[in-house]
Amino acid sequence: MNDVMLKTPVQEIRLPDTGDRIFIKRDDLIGFSFGGNKVRIAWEFCQDMKEKGCDCLVAYGSSRSNMCRALANLCSRYEIPCYVLTAKEDVVEEGTFNSRMVEAFGAHIRFCHKDNVAEGVDELMEELKSMGYRPYYVFGDRYGMGNEEAAARAYRKVYRELLEYQEEQGIVFDRIFLASGTGMTQGGLVAGQNQYGGHADITGISVARPSGRGKSEVARFAGAGPEDVHFEDGYVCGGYGLYDKDIESVIRLMMERFGIPLDPTYTGKAFSGMLKYLKTRSHEPENVLFIHTGGTPLYFDYLNAARIGGQAADRIANSPLTGL
Amino acid sequence: MNDVMLKTPVQEIRLPDTGDRIFIKRDDLIGFSFGGNKVRIAWEFCQDMKEKGCDCLVAYGSSRSNMCRALANLCSRYEIPCYVLTAKEDVVEEGTFNSRMVEAFGAHIRFCHKDNVAEGVDELMEELKSMGYRPYYVFGDRYGMGNEEAAARAYRKVYRELLEYQEEQGIVFDRIFLASGTGMTQGGLVAGQNQYGGHADITGISVARPSGRGKSEVARFAGAGPEDVHFEDGYVCGGYGLYDKDIESVIRLMMERFGIPLDPTYTGKAFSGMLKYLKTRSHEPENVLFIHTGGTPLYFDYLNAARIGGQAADRIANSPLTGL
Repeated sequence: MNDVMLKTPVQEIRLPDTGDRIFIKRDDLIGFSFGGNKVRIAWEFCQDMKEKGCDCLVAYGSSRSNMCRALANLCSRYEIPCYVLTAKEDVVEEGTFNSRMVEAFGAHIRFCHKDNVAEGVDELMEELKSMGYRPYYVFGDRYGMGNEEAAARAYRKVYRELLEYQEEQGIVFDRIFLASGTGMTQGGLVAGQNQYGGHADITGISVARPSGRGKSEVARFAGAGPEDVHFEDGYVCGGYGLYDKDIESVIRLMMERFGIPLDPTYTGKAFSGMLKYLKTRSHEPENVLFIHTGGTPLYFDYLNAARIGGQAADRIANSPLTGL
Repeated sequence: MNDVMLKTPVQEIRLPDTGDRIFIKRDDLIGFSFGGNKVRIAWEFCQDMKEKGCDCLVAYGSSRSNMCRALANLCSRYEIPCYVLTAKEDVVEEGTFNSRMVEAFGAHIRFCHKDNVAEGVDELMEELKSMGYRPYYVFGDRYGMGNEEAAARAYRKVYRELLEYQEEQGIVFDRIFLASGTGMTQGGLVAGQNQYGGHADITGISVARPSGRGKSEVARFAGAGPEDVHFEDGYVCGGYGLYDKDIESVIRLMMERFGIPLDPTYTGKAFSGMLKYLKTRSHEPENVLFIHTGGTPLYFDYLNAARIGGQAADRIANSPLTGL
């Protein structure tokens, strides 16, 4: 556990426009594979895989997937054969930094169609079994169900750490915000709160999904009911990967003011959404924690796109979020 | 000081081929502007600038300069006007991630010729004075002399921190390795050792300079004699920015095995040089610390170059290191 450098700091920043105290959990500074929430979760999947006696890992995700990069790097670290299944519709032709690293780490890339992911998973698993492997599909069964507990474990632990941090520092977080996509990170936090207590309002800012689906996915990972989940879908900005001038100016502000990189798909969208959410509600000054879920390679993709000219958004298909 | 997140961990890694214990000081994880040694040094320049009552900062460096990026970001942070002077010969036409960020942070870019840097500095300083500014040139006078102490302060402090770390952990570093370019980082460490004591052999792996010039520059920053400086120029690999298959395979190994990015110009060249140096000398197992001096944007430049095809080295002019 120690050697993937999972310890990260909490940083307070001062923003001019808000009366709230804003803290940031810097999970982008995890010292393995450019960090981010997916490194924590990928780590838990690898532990779970070992416990289950498997010897080959199967992931599913798009060319932009932080999860696939983190898994492929852990697999190269521990010499575990790694297979990444990608829907043809989710392939970025020119590549992304994440997809190039997945290749560099020696992962085997396979393709399926978006409408036939379950069949694609089945086929790959059968093929690997026939090769003598005991393959482990990180998301569970062919429909991506059944491995919620391992996924949620990562941020269940972070929630506990945050309780300890609050006690040490003598502060209480009134709200915890984060980018909410697959639901694994928020689900872990909610599971942690249910287990360890505390009253922070854990608010997921949706990066793609509408509220209904978003809540039920977070609830599935949390082992809770949708009524336990606070999920805001008002800042989706048209869909997954799409962004606007407000998000871009928040990205610029955070880099110029604090040297903190955000990306337009996840953390920039969520941070912008959080600021809008806080502004539209009149409230007493609060202690607000934003979980920086990383994705540094996406920041550099963003800079590349800006160089090529035109927003990356123009080139991003508005694809659903399945199996990110 | 606190808000630029200058606290970084030391990580032990296990390499198969060496009997030594290898530790890495992860200054690439400094939580401001993608970190690195230049963030620490830039921070000291900004403090020095304030103490001297100046109100406008002047930097000098190439398109690849980590220092210029760190300074431009600190200036945007503190709303200090920032001017970056670059020799036309050191401009990378297509831009680098560092040069794009320097522009994004609102720094003003000026050009001079490599043979007339002193004149370029003079002209710019005069112009800024005529605009009513009290400009501060980070490297001192027109020849880049006179500001050694501020530069060295950063790693003088790190040296002291490392002594505390060794005491806490009950270990003693026999050797400290790092990429040595301008001499500011190694100079700071040597100054720290002269001030606070300790016996580690502080070895700079040259990324460009031959031993004579390299030693005298480190000594200048350390406020010491060249005889106090251990500077190895046997791993320069043809010149600044040039690299070979050995360096590339070390970069690959460190990313695959430990999720730690190195770049071919500084940290990858130095780490590769360190491993060769340790191998060619028979010795009892030692405790070896490598200072990861950062440069994450350069890692992504390297990935971009690999994508475009062909080694970046092919496109890199073998330029001297003046004022990096």
